Formats: sequence, C-alpha cells, structure tokens
Amino acid sequence: MSFKEGDYVLIVYEDRKYLRKLVKGMSLNVKEHTIQFQDIVGKGDGQKIGEFFVFSPTLEDIILLGFERKTQIVYPKDAFYIAFKLNIKSTDRVLEFGTGSGVMTVVLSLLAGEVWTYEADTKFYNNALKNWERFGLCSNVKAFNENFLSASVEDNFFDACFVDVREPWEYIEKVWRVLKDGKACAFVLPTTNQVSKLLSSMQNFFADIQVFEILLRHYKTNPERLRPQDQMVGHTAYVVFGRKRI
Amino acid sequence: MSFKEGDYVLIVYEDRKYLRKLVKGMSLNVKEHTIQFQDIVGKGDGQKIGEFFVFSPTLEDIILLGFERKTQIVYPKDAFYIAFKLNIKSTDRVLEFGTGSGVMTVVLSLLAGEVWTYEADTKFYNNALKNWERFGLCSNVKAFNENFLSASVEDNFFDACFVDVREPWEYIEKVWRVLKDGKACAFVLPTTNQVSKLLSSMQNFFADIQVFEILLRHYKTNPERLRPQDQMVGHTAYVVFGRKRI
Amino acid sequence: MSFKEGDYVLIVYEDRKYLRKLVKGMSLNVKEHTIQFQDIVGKGDGQKIGEFFVFSPTLEDIILLGFERKTQIVYPKDAFYIAFKLNIKSTDRVLEFGTGSGVMTVVLSLLAGEVWTYEADTKFYNNALKNWERFGLCSNVKAFNENFLSASVEDNFFDACFVDVREPWEYIEKVWRVLKDGKACAFVLPTTNQVSKLLSSMQNFFADIQVFEILLRHYKTNPERLRPQDQMVGHTAYVVFGRKRI
Amino acid sequence: MSFKEGDYVLIVYEDRKYLRKLVKGMSLNVKEHTIQFQDIVGKGDGQKIGEFFVFSPTLEDIILLGFERKTQIVYPKDAFYIAFKLNIKSTDRVLEFGTGSGVMTVVLSLLAGEVWTYEADTKFYNNALKNWERFGLCSNVKAFNENFLSASVEDNFFDACFVDVREPWEYIEKVWRVLKDGKACAFVLPTTNQVSKLLSSMQNFFADIQVFEILLRHYKTNPERLRPQDQMVGHTAYVVFGRKRI
Repeated sequence: MSFKEGDYVLIVYEDRKYLRKLVKGMSLNVKEHTIQFQDIVGKGDGQKIGEFFVFSPTLEDIILLGFERKTQIVYPKDAFYIAFKLNIKSTDRVLEFGTGSGVMTVVLSLLAGEVWTYEADTKFYNNALKNWERFGLCSNVKAFNENFLSASVEDNFFDACFVDVREPWEYIEKVWRVLKDGKACAFVLPTTNQVSKLLSSMQNFFADIQVFEILLRHYKTNPERLRPQDQMVGHTAYVVFGRKRI
Repeated sequence: MSFKEGDYVLIVYEDRKYLRKLVKGMSLNVKEHTIQFQDIVGKGDGQKIGEFFVFSPTLEDIILLGFERKTQIVYPKDAFYIAFKLNIKSTDRVLEFGTGSGVMTVVLSLLAGEVWTYEADTKFYNNALKNWERFGLCSNVKAFNENFLSASVEDNFFDACFVDVREPWEYIEKVWRVLKDGKACAFVLPTTNQVSKLLSSMQNFFADIQVFEILLRHYKTNPERLRPQDQMVGHTAYVVFGRKRI
Repeated sequence: MSFKEGDYVLIVYEDRKYLRKLVKGMSLNVKEHTIQFQDIVGKGDGQKIGEFFVFSPTLEDIILLGFERKTQIVYPKDAFYIAFKLNIKSTDRVLEFGTGSGVMTVVLSLLAGEVWTYEADTKFYNNALKNWERFGLCSNVKAFNENFLSASVEDNFFDACFVDVREPWEYIEKVWRVLKDGKACAFVLPTTNQVSKLLSSMQNFFADIQVFEILLRHYKTNPERLRPQDQMVGHTAYVVFGRKRI
Repeated sequence: MSFKEGDYVLIVYEDRKYLRKLVKGMSLNVKEHTIQFQDIVGKGDGQKIGEFFVFSPTLEDIILLGFERKTQIVYPKDAFYIAFKLNIKSTDRVLEFGTGSGVMTVVLSLLAGEVWTYEADTKFYNNALKNWERFGLCSNVKAFNENFLSASVEDNFFDACFVDVREPWEYIEKVWRVLKDGKACAFVLPTTNQVSKLLSSMQNFFADIQVFEILLRHYKTNPERLRPQDQMVGHTAYVVFGRKRI
C-alpha cells in the first residue's frame, strides 16, 4: 500500500497528530518543520519523512480528527464500549436518534447489518451526511431528517437502539415498542438530572438497568519518567443501559 | 425467539445476574426466590418470570459470566476499546498472543476475517478452546499451543496485533516483522515497571505510541438517590498502543 | 516513648493494620502469627516484634480503626481537605451538625478554638461522645443532643460551618444567619439529587460555590510490580462549599 | 471586619477568582465589568459590589492564587491530606526538604510547633521567603538555603518529615536517623519510576508503607444541569508514606 493523491493521511509529529487530504501543493508546518504533501505520495504506510510519520488513518483518527463537529460528539472511549454492550451482530437492524455529528452511526454501521438513524435538526443531519461521505462510511445507513417521535416504524423491528437526545424520557415508550423483546438500548446524557429523569421513565419498560461513566487516562510515554498526563478529560457523558422487558 | 433446552440464558434478579444453561430439573435460588429452568423453556427474551427476568446473553455477559478464567482476563471496558483502536476490518488477519482465557480472541474474531492466536501454556490453551466451544464462538480463529517466539510466520503478514504476555519486550522485533507496515499493535500490562520496559523496547519500531488506562465507574440506579457505587475496580491493566514505523 | 498498659497501639502486619488497647493477657492473631500484648508493653514506637510492627496511632488510625461507626463517617480524604478549605484558625468558633460518629468534629477541634456540634439522634450523640472520650479527644467541643434547627444561637456567631445532614437545604437560612459575613460552609452529601437541591437553596445566600469529590487511589507497594490496588472506594460523598455573601 | 488599603482580597466573578492587594487607583476588569479597588475599602467580607463578591482569602486562596511559583507546587488536595497523615501536633518539630515554592511549609507550620525547611536552590529559597513574607505566614519556620544532605542535625530530632526532592532515595538513611522512632515521613513524586526506586530504598527503614494518589473532580454548579467539569487535573503527584521502624 502506498499513498496517492486524494488519500487521507494521518501525519504524526512527536505527540501531535493531523489528518489531512493529500492535495498537491499543500503542506503541513509544525514548529519549524514542514512536510510537503507531494512528498507523501508514493510513500508507504508507517514511513518516516523528515521528522514526521505518515499512516493510514484508523476509524478513531477519522472520528477525532476528520469529522466536522456541529454537536458534542460521542467519544470513542464511550462509543466503542456501548457498541459492544448493545451486542450488535452483522445481521442486526439498529436504531439511532439523534444522529448528531454521525460518530456513533459509524461505529454502529461497522457492526450491524443496517442502521436507521434520525436527526431532527437539518444542519446536523447534513453535516453528518457530509462527514460520512468524505470518508466513504455508512453505506448501510438509512438517515432520516426527522424527529424519531414522528417516525412511523413497525413494532418489534430493531435489534438494538442508541439514543443521544436531550429529553430521552419522551421516547421511552416508543423505543420500547420498536425494539425486539429482550434487546438492549443505550443512552448518553451529560447531566445527573437527566440521568435521574431517564431512570424514572425506564422502570416499567427495561430491566438490567445500568448507569456508568468511562474515564480515559492518558500517560506520558517517556519510559524513564512514566506518569499520567497533567490534564485529562473530566467528563463526556453518563451512559444508561437497559434491556426491553416484557 | 423463545428459549429452549440447552440454551444459555441470562437470569436477572434486581442487581444480580447469572448465566445458566437450561437443563431440565435445574433451578436457581436467589435469596428466598427460586426459578425452575423448565419454566424458562418456551418463554421469550426479556420475559418476567416471578421476580426474575430472562434474557439472551450478550457477548459481554458470556465473557464476564460464562467464561472459565484460568488467567486474569482482558476486561470488556478494555477489550472493546482496544479492538476498535486496532481498526480491525472484516478482511483483516489479526495476531494475538497469549490467548489466556480467550476473551480478547472473541472480540477480535468478531471484527476480523481471521485471528491467529498463540498460547504457550497448555492448560490455558485448552481452557480457551473450551470457552469458545461452549458458546459457539471463534470459528474464524486458528489457535496454536505454542510460544509465539518459536512460531514461524511470514513477514508483513498481519493487519493488527494484540499482546498479553508478561515480557512483551522480548517479542517486539518479531511483532514488528510480522505486522504489515503502518499497522497497529496493542499490549496490556498490569504494572508500571512493565510499561516502562516495554516503552523502551518500542522506540525504534513503533510510532504514535500511547499509554492509557480505562476506568469504569458504575452508579446505583435509584433515580431519587443517584450516586456512584461504593466500590469500583481500581485497576485492570495499562494499555500500550503503537503503529509499526518503517 | 515506650508503650504501657492501657495505651492504644497500632499493630501492623504486612498490609494489615489493627488498633488495640494494651490489656494484659490479650493477644492478636493474624494468619499463623500471634503477638501477646504484654510483649508490647515497654517497647518503643516503631519497634518490630516478631512479624509485627507497633506504632502510636495517628489521628487517621484512630478515626478509621478506633471509632465505633453508627453512621456513615466522613472519610479522612474528605475531612482533612474540607477542614483546610474552611480556613479554620486556632481562635475560631466552628459550627457542626449533625455530629454523626464524631469524625469531623475531631478534625475541626484540632484546628479551631472551639467547636459547637449538634446531633438530634441520641444514639449517635452518645456514640460520638464515647468515641472522643475513649481517645481523649475534643476537649474544646460543646456537643448538643439537639436538632440544630431548634438551637438558639446568635447571628454572626461562627467562623466556619460543616454540615452533614440529609436535608441541608432546610438549614440554609439559619446557617447563613449564624455564620459571620464572608465565612465558609461545607456540606457532604451522598447523592446527586441532594447536591442539586442544596445548590438551588444556596443561590442567594452563598457565593464562590464549589462542588467536588475526592478520589483516593491506593497502589500496591512492591517496587518491582508497582500498580494500583485492584479495588478502590468508588464513592464516599460529594462536597459542596460556599461562602456567606451579603 | 472591613477591608482597608493594603489588604489582600479575593475577588469572585461568577466562576473566576482573583487575589489582589488593595492599592488605591488600581482596578480589576473581567469581561465588560470593572471593580475599582478604592470601592472595596471599607466594605465587609462577603459583600457584593456590582457583579463581584469580595472575600478575605483563605489559606487555599493564598496558595493557589497568591504564591509565586518557581517550582511545581504541592497542591492543596495533596498538601492538606498529607499534613494530617503526618499527625502533626502543635508541639511538634517538623522537617521539610526541599522547600520549593513554600506551599507545604505553610500547611505544616499551621499545625506544628516549628518547621525546619531546607532548599538547596537559592532562587527557590528566596522565592519561598518572599511568598511567606507577603502574606505574613510561617513565623515558626526555620528556613535553610542548603541541601539537607549536608545539614547537621541531631538523631531522633523530628516528629514528622515531608520530602519533595527529585532523588529522595539518597536521603533515606538520613531521614531515618533524624526522625524520632515510629514517626511518619511523606514524599511526593511525579513519576512511577521514582516511586519504584524510592520504595526499594525504604524497605528496611520504614513500615506501614503506603502509595496513593488523590484525584479531585470538580462539578459545574448549575443545579438543573449537575455534571463534572469538562477538564480535570489528571495528575499532580504520587504520595509515598511510611513510618520509621526500629
């Protein structure tokens, strides 16, 4: 594999990372160092070019560095664990609302047979579509520019559900109806007040209810001076999980 | 879907969960409550039976409650995030050593085209095989009862690698050789001393080196009294990540 | 200094610690090892006796190992930081309610000129008194077996205040009145619901409002295998802090 | 109490805090708001002036906002807990080295009878002295511009010890000698490598050895939207604690 014009490339300089499209004539400057994009064309994955390394971006690189954010995104630390907790199989049909910037959709689409995602806000909806298109993602996704509350969906239709809206308690009954029996739903919420309100609304619809948060702590990588980084992300979201009871 | 004899079922009673095989005549007793397994047969996923709920187990349920552990396992909070960081695609060939209890193998096998996994210890090797067989997992896995150091593998052969052995620095050069250029490797290690030693050994072979740990904090689910649980897991493993540089 | 009969002594065996009163004829058994208390009498602080070490207990040892708990206690990690945030000086008069098991009272009394503490529950009140008496603490404390709501206290009377009751919002106006202008009050609360309700009640009475929690993470002390302990305390209390505004 | 010229005052505007000396003609501008210092003179502690509140600074305010830092400081979350773990009484003589910016000295001096503190670096030494002088602190402190290794001190002289130097293992034997039997010493260190090396050196000199770190997590104070702050301090220092064994 070698990079060609138009490819997206992850450029690493010490601890810093940049995701760039290889457009002729462009370059990246970090401190006093410069890498010309035409010098990357034809080079292999992992190659050292001056002080830089070039790599094919992973899904996480694309999400963190390539996606335009018009909303708070679901962070990889949360997204990846949630996707697995939902137990998505390659034949599954998965529901998501709201789409937001389209991060979680990507993760779900990777595991599922198909994903149906709803976003009421047209600006967010268009941005998510653009994010996926730019990186050739989400070909198995049906996106709706619509509030899921007004969507018409059969009962017992989805194998899993992911919810990222401000007032999820308003959707509980509908989520319950469209999920297949016993299947899981996960919600992300930033505040404790929302978590409390959501938990109250779930009582008679879901069992095995769990609430958790994931903290990701990065370390400096000097082997002689191993220590956590000075700053860390203090909070992204609380995750609420439950399975449809009948 | 309804449960039939021989199925594995997740039985939920309040905050407690049990994974059981539906064998006629068997039952589960929790506090003063009893559920007869023959009463589960024919019931649907998510159904309430007395004080219990019954569900089809997810992959996480199987790993945490169904796998026999002869080693420290890779916990879901770590396993799922690592799998995605390795950016495994459905056409990929992935390397793992040591297999341990076979938890990470399951997660890798779900995402990859095929997984080659090496375990030197025969007791662990047999246990992992038994764990997978019991739950019908890992059909795309080639397992070797062999130390990876003595395995004969082509160069530039694997698309990703996961390492869970005590002295990973001894394998660095070989890992580097068998990985395709630019591809990622993740290591899990319990102690800071091991992390330091590993980091030293990686310097000229890997770039974009990262060290992190994931903390999972569970909350009690009473909406009127939302608060973290009194006890939490304080440590499972440090994760070291890097990409093959050339 | 050498131990004599009737002294309290901290006995350390590997990672385990015991606080015991030196009573003739008594002994402590840990695993297959025994230490006779008469063998401690006459020994010095820090001395090794067989497999054990003996030390004069610190205030933290007394709180954690010597105090009888009839309530959830304020943990040292929280108590010590709170005491300093309250900026208590040796001439200060400090208010506390409820007394609970009397842990925070000890910490406050160490720093303050005098402490007035209120406890409505007679069982808790008597237990706190017994805890202090047993270890000769809190000679500068006035303890009241009374709900602070019904206490008659002058306005602008206290230099600092610590509150550990279930419904602190009911006391806000009174706390505000009895505190001197600009002085600080700290509250401990286990749940987020209580924190929200308390914050609402503080809006017009306090400024510089802060909410935080303190996490204490212990490590295993093997220098060749440095790593966090497997389990840690996940939650004790949220701390709310504010200063009286006028 | 009312503010007068020359006083230090804590000025609070929403979530922001400033420590300023009341000098005539000076003012503070935050966003579009201004507070003239002459308008604070004569006002009481806790008073609202326009959009600002004014308070007498606490010790924590002085440490965090008033001290000039020429070194990494010991943070209040660590300093306060350490001071109590050292079990310092008002008659105690306490040893500290190195002095650094003089933060821990302040906390120790508040609790102890006297503090002896050593700092080899003249720049740091002078800065610490200036910090204390500015706020009228540390009158019971003897400060030495000297490496503690070359200090001449009697054996069994100190009741407690606090160490904040890069290579504390070089001082272990001397610390052990000058501490009274059974008394405690605490060390702060930023890296795991240092902690390992220190632990090795302590084995035959100290017992009840503990290693821990303290994480302080702040929350936003909107009662309707209670949630942790987005960023938090990820690491300040590991604390190592031990008691002199004989």
